[in-house]
Amino acid sequence: MRERIKKQMDFLREIDKLKQIGRQSYLADGSRKENDAEHSWHLAMCALTLREYMPESVDASRTVEMVLIHDLVEIWAGDAYAYDAQAQAAQHEKEVAAAEKLFGMLPEDQKAYFKGLWEEFEACETQDARFARVLDNCQPLLLNDASGGKSWREHGIAKEQVYKRNQRVRQWAPPEIWEYMDSLIQKHVKLGNLSAAEEDNRQNSENARMDG
Amino acid sequence: MRERIKKQMDFLREIDKLKQIGRQSYLADGSRKENDAEHSWHLAMCALTLREYMPESVDASRTVEMVLIHDLVEIWAGDAYAYDAQAQAAQHEKEVAAAEKLFGMLPEDQKAYFKGLWEEFEACETQDARFARVLDNCQPLLLNDASGGKSWREHGIAKEQVYKRNQRVRQWAPPEIWEYMDSLIQKHVKLGNLSAAEEDNRQNSENARMDG
Repeated sequence: MRERIKKQMDFLREIDKLKQIGRQSYLADGSRKENDAEHSWHLAMCALTLREYMPESVDASRTVEMVLIHDLVEIWAGDAYAYDAQAQAAQHEKEVAAAEKLFGMLPEDQKAYFKGLWEEFEACETQDARFARVLDNCQPLLLNDASGGKSWREHGIAKEQVYKRNQRVRQWAPPEIWEYMDSLIQKHVKLGNLSAAEEDNRQNSENARMDG
Repeated sequence: MRERIKKQMDFLREIDKLKQIGRQSYLADGSRKENDAEHSWHLAMCALTLREYMPESVDASRTVEMVLIHDLVEIWAGDAYAYDAQAQAAQHEKEVAAAEKLFGMLPEDQKAYFKGLWEEFEACETQDARFARVLDNCQPLLLNDASGGKSWREHGIAKEQVYKRNQRVRQWAPPEIWEYMDSLIQKHVKLGNLSAAEEDNRQNSENARMDG
């Protein structure tokens, strides 16, 4: 028993590192960029607040668990630019190895549980995972909206890129949520924070990672 | 419906401010202090990882919800030194007003739900709330342990103060968890990071807020 709780507490100390994995999204007030732990907390709050829109078959508490752990592998695998296809391909292998090691700090049964939850999020085949993905794309939109599109402007992002990035989520999102997300995108095209033309910005965005 | 989701999204943008409410605990590597959003995420991870020790009557997913929202009122009420009795008394009134306003941004049914959950955490009368409190005291111990007692040393904290602060939690904690917490306290008394004598440090600690 003592060996078991020691492993669990060591894991809880190790994952503290998530607080130091940076993201591209700015906080709502634009003062600094957020980190993965803050992002994960915010997604869990999105899940609690927006759960009424989930399809009935979605298990809200599993979705909360999924978003709480979905970025943990970045502690050991690092991050890859969302618009760098080569880095993205290599990234998956690194993340699988990281999941094996990180969740491997836990007792076997818990390792299997958390690893399974992370794999489910990655595969995006279940309703729970798809709702988690919707939130993972919606939250950066909220932050970009609040900060006046600061991250979009810095990377010269075009609206087509945002729509492309949200292609799957658009199909999976409950209509109320997609309608809201889409209204934010359109608002920031009008404001000029998202460019209407893709060509001008392709070069910038290839060198930039963008979370939302 | 659109009015409803607009309120919910406005609330989700507002609570982003939790990422800027500072705490006294240092990150595990001692590089900086953590904030309330990071702390709330970490508590939720503690709940998921340690749920097997919860009494059977505890609803793990309610405990997760409680720790995710437990510090939200600090966005509008600010923080009070844990060892400043006068500030603590005034603090409760401020937090009640903050809960009313902050959760009041949501539709009525959700306002009632979140406010009820926060009140339950504050009152500490249910098993779910008590387990949440145990985690809220255990997590800063983990961080203090990992950072070599940095926050304790800075505030000149004595072991009696830590035991006093954990008086209720000691009764509520599952034996395995309290045994582990206690082993950390004793370890840091031996290391000299927690002073054995209370008298020497009373003055320092009266001027200091300490999270754990």
